[in-house]
Amino acid sequence: MTRGRFISLEGGEGAGKSTQLNLLAERLVDAGIKLVTTREPGGTKGAETIRELFVSGATDRWDAATEACLVNAARADHVARLIRPALDRGDWVLCDRYADSTFAYQGGDKGVADADLQALHRVATGDLWPDLTLLLDLPVETGLARTLKRIGGATRFEAHDISFHQRVAARFHARAAAEPRRIRTINADIDAHHVAAAIWAEVAPLLPC
Amino acid sequence: MTRGRFISLEGGEGAGKSTQLNLLAERLVDAGIKLVTTREPGGTKGAETIRELFVSGATDRWDAATEACLVNAARADHVARLIRPALDRGDWVLCDRYADSTFAYQGGDKGVADADLQALHRVATGDLWPDLTLLLDLPVETGLARTLKRIGGATRFEAHDISFHQRVAARFHARAAAEPRRIRTINADIDAHHVAAAIWAEVAPLLPC
Repeated sequence: MTRGRFISLEGGEGAGKSTQLNLLAERLVDAGIKLVTTREPGGTKGAETIRELFVSGATDRWDAATEACLVNAARADHVARLIRPALDRGDWVLCDRYADSTFAYQGGDKGVADADLQALHRVATGDLWPDLTLLLDLPVETGLARTLKRIGGATRFEAHDISFHQRVAARFHARAAAEPRRIRTINADIDAHHVAAAIWAEVAPLLPC
Repeated sequence: MTRGRFISLEGGEGAGKSTQLNLLAERLVDAGIKLVTTREPGGTKGAETIRELFVSGATDRWDAATEACLVNAARADHVARLIRPALDRGDWVLCDRYADSTFAYQGGDKGVADADLQALHRVATGDLWPDLTLLLDLPVETGLARTLKRIGGATRFEAHDISFHQRVAARFHARAAAEPRRIRTINADIDAHHVAAAIWAEVAPLLPC
């Protein structure tokens, strides 16, 4: 039995992660790959219960360390109950967001230190990282405009929101620069079918011969 | 402003922790000490909400790593929102169970490695340890018999329960042996007032002159 491949899709708001995840899943199924698609935060019943704790309530409900522990508790359940069993039985796993999002959103100057996030990740997941991470990249303003359009928002993002999302984007870029073999940056500022083709060029080499 | 003192009470079931915590609190208040009494798991609204996740549901609801992350998320909230602010304003904190219980109950051969629990503790609490930990020690069978009497249980503990609690006791003893300055072992197999006197002998040196 060959272990399955683990692929995560990362990127900011409006980058098209779920669209591309579905297109990639279809193409892999056509290529004869058995796979599971999932998402974070959440992905299992237990993880979704924990997710509720940190996506609901006031924004200051938890301090940064508490939130980082909760995020990793949810991921620990997701890995133990869904991702690792799927990989062990030979299925591929496509995940909409994974641990890079924690470093991008919970890390940085105002968040939890990278070394602490790394320690939590090691305990929660046994240091499980994807075989391939596809970072869908487009200008922050473009992604936020797409998100507004999708949710039918009549408002505009505030300057401090844009600067937050720009810091998130900078942390994604820094991670891609630090791990160029695992994290492949995909230009997502073009039409979805060209993005899908660029993704396929990264994924195809992982297919069994 | 002098930082307050942080004292935890530890021990197995039926060791008399909450009785002794109350007796100690009374005596400290009589000595003019401002203090907060609290307990784990829980102690704050957020921590109690997280506690619900790991004390309810089936015993195999969470795997060991997930449970350890949840326990530390609850402790992170308790430290950030109650314990550290109290110590910072000069109050003493008396806590019924703290991190040593996590090492005793979640650690060991069938649990999470001590190094991993240490990493979680460092991230969750900034490595906050009590100034003094009072380990109330009595034979496992005596403690379990007291607990049964208190809860009016008509049943007996099963052999595998006793062996679990014996492993927990052994881990408490090992921690006390490794940190003899912080963790003071108190014979709890005598009447409560003699236990209280032995505790006071350990606490009195911490009082301001």
